[in-house]
Amino acid sequence: MISPKYKEMLNQKSVIREISAYANARGKEIGYENVFDYSLGNPSVPVPEKFRETAVKLLEEKDPLALHGYSEGHGIWEVREAVAASLKKRFGLPYTGNHIFMASGAAGALAHAFRTVTVPGEDIIVFAPYFPEYVPYIEATGANIKIVEADTESFQIHFERFEELISENTAAVLINSPNNPSGIVYSGETLKRLTDILKKKQEEYGHDIYIISDEPYREIIFEGTDAPIVSRYYDNTIMCYSFSKSISIPGERIGYVAVNPNCKDGELIIHMCTQISRGIGHNCPSSLIQLVAANLLEDTADLSVYEKNMEILYKELTELGFTCVKPGGTFYMFPKALEEDAKAFCRKALKYDLALVPGDSFGCPGFFRIAYCVPTEKVERSLSAFRKLAKEYED
Amino acid sequence: MISPKYKEMLNQKSVIREISAYANARGKEIGYENVFDYSLGNPSVPVPEKFRETAVKLLEEKDPLALHGYSEGHGIWEVREAVAASLKKRFGLPYTGNHIFMASGAAGALAHAFRTVTVPGEDIIVFAPYFPEYVPYIEATGANIKIVEADTESFQIHFERFEELISENTAAVLINSPNNPSGIVYSGETLKRLTDILKKKQEEYGHDIYIISDEPYREIIFEGTDAPIVSRYYDNTIMCYSFSKSISIPGERIGYVAVNPNCKDGELIIHMCTQISRGIGHNCPSSLIQLVAANLLEDTADLSVYEKNMEILYKELTELGFTCVKPGGTFYMFPKALEEDAKAFCRKALKYDLALVPGDSFGCPGFFRIAYCVPTEKVERSLSAFRKLAKEYED
Repeated sequence: MISPKYKEMLNQKSVIREISAYANARGKEIGYENVFDYSLGNPSVPVPEKFRETAVKLLEEKDPLALHGYSEGHGIWEVREAVAASLKKRFGLPYTGNHIFMASGAAGALAHAFRTVTVPGEDIIVFAPYFPEYVPYIEATGANIKIVEADTESFQIHFERFEELISENTAAVLINSPNNPSGIVYSGETLKRLTDILKKKQEEYGHDIYIISDEPYREIIFEGTDAPIVSRYYDNTIMCYSFSKSISIPGERIGYVAVNPNCKDGELIIHMCTQISRGIGHNCPSSLIQLVAANLLEDTADLSVYEKNMEILYKELTELGFTCVKPGGTFYMFPKALEEDAKAFCRKALKYDLALVPGDSFGCPGFFRIAYCVPTEKVERSLSAFRKLAKEYED
Repeated sequence: MISPKYKEMLNQKSVIREISAYANARGKEIGYENVFDYSLGNPSVPVPEKFRETAVKLLEEKDPLALHGYSEGHGIWEVREAVAASLKKRFGLPYTGNHIFMASGAAGALAHAFRTVTVPGEDIIVFAPYFPEYVPYIEATGANIKIVEADTESFQIHFERFEELISENTAAVLINSPNNPSGIVYSGETLKRLTDILKKKQEEYGHDIYIISDEPYREIIFEGTDAPIVSRYYDNTIMCYSFSKSISIPGERIGYVAVNPNCKDGELIIHMCTQISRGIGHNCPSSLIQLVAANLLEDTADLSVYEKNMEILYKELTELGFTCVKPGGTFYMFPKALEEDAKAFCRKALKYDLALVPGDSFGCPGFFRIAYCVPTEKVERSLSAFRKLAKEYED
């Protein structure tokens, strides 16, 4: 029969997509250049030229049967080795190809990671504010999602609530730093405190607890921000990476799972990813795209525009009286709305053709997300709209 | 905790992969040209030149933000429309883009199709001989797999057993024609009889029963074979297609779900596919590969080699006394082994550096699969090995 579960999901519309659809419709009316669409996290700077050059070279020079042939279920071995070598050089941990599984973007990486280290009924802890798609990702595995409320002062971790929620039933903790939607980067102090607690709890409960680290924004770090990687603090870390944001290829669906080389079950976890693929029909990212990406492991698109946009918006918004924790990376910021109901606030913003996303779906009501992956000139033109919006609340 | 389910799967080694690994190891010893590796269904003819040309043109001319940007969850709209237009023209059914979901090859298409029309505990009926990966595909959905024994005279459908197995609990019937491993194409008569039964049973049980039709070999049809498509016989048909075999790009992971335009829940099923993607982390095939494939919908690699190989092998094997139903398509054939135990037979074959796969894992003991997607000169050189093998059984 038609699956009621998936049919029901059709009614759980994504708020982000709805606002984006509204912005698009409005663009048709008044011209897209006049809509300040801050709804979607879609990179606004092109892929490095080297991507095109590498792809063309492979297409023209490599034997097509090898180029387009089945790759091993784990991914193409030389690609996995190249990823490992790059991580080893950058982060100083002894990665080898055996610690890498090539996945369809971070979504695919997370889908696999969750299934390796949880069984239905166990808990996965998530920290607000969080990417709303974590909910369907986790629900599909049969694990429970347990949400730790945000520390809205810093958007680091609300440790008191975390210690209340962690239990014998906790299988994994999902973190996302640099963070969507707040733009915040977890400090070394935060990571130390988090991993100290987990080490103690592992001992207390007598079982492993994994950190699943969603890192698609790892390469978008602003000046002066220290962005330590959690794998250096905690052996049972499963890193989930995507090339979508760093080299602006979200449509190409490529990323990887990199298990910490010091994780005792690390290589087993990677082998299990391939088995999980059999059931979910993933198999592998495109072989062409794998081979191209392996050549761009330390390249990024010109990410400087995001920091520039952030500085412009942060200055203007704080001057207008908004409260906002200054982002350390990503292309998001997450200010406090000017009224308690962020949904009402975002509806008001639409009057000025500002498409903002209320924090409710990120598990953090009262705040709103700005995805400033748009051209800088548009950011500048949007400032008067923010001024008009703020003016509504002056009295 | 480490998932026991997926850990256990690591012990369920694929027999095909094991034989292929043996053939590779043997190739290292005596030279790959001397191993007659008939184990893997990996295309042996290159992708059409047009694929390279189209990819290079897109990479050089299309705006990279559009080329590599997020596609809609269902797939890129113009790609879906192009697929629909081609199916409509070829098969005379009123497909539109709304009937198409772009998937990661047939594996991805099947993973989605199963989840749309079954709930855990319902039955999916499969006909032997069948592709062994159907087992993990179906098990991952929570549905039960019910296997109809092969009609080994014709490798069409064993209807008596089918009518015994179908029940109120049947949600879907999976077919695969042209068939892996037998190379058999279901006749119009078979499809008529199958769909007549299903129509009657739908009425009797008062609920829909879907045909999920796995069609990666649709374009590999030999002369004189009539290959009717099941969608023309039955409204509740969900076609699962892959470009892997027809244009020799298995590593690019692209295919689609095409629901029969006359299926009353057809468009709903396509929307549900996108929701299912959220949970299994699929999202979409590579945007570049989608756009390239849309330009090759009616192109194929030079598939004639497969028919040539089949004729050579069929002639020799039948002369040697093998019983074999002559394939109507694919690049497989499925003769009867010369002893009851096909595993023992295939072990003997290895003495002559012939890598064949016993039928047991295809749900059809006593037979063996030859995947003749290898160069013709190698097929010719392999004949003396078959002769030596057959000689062992002469007495």
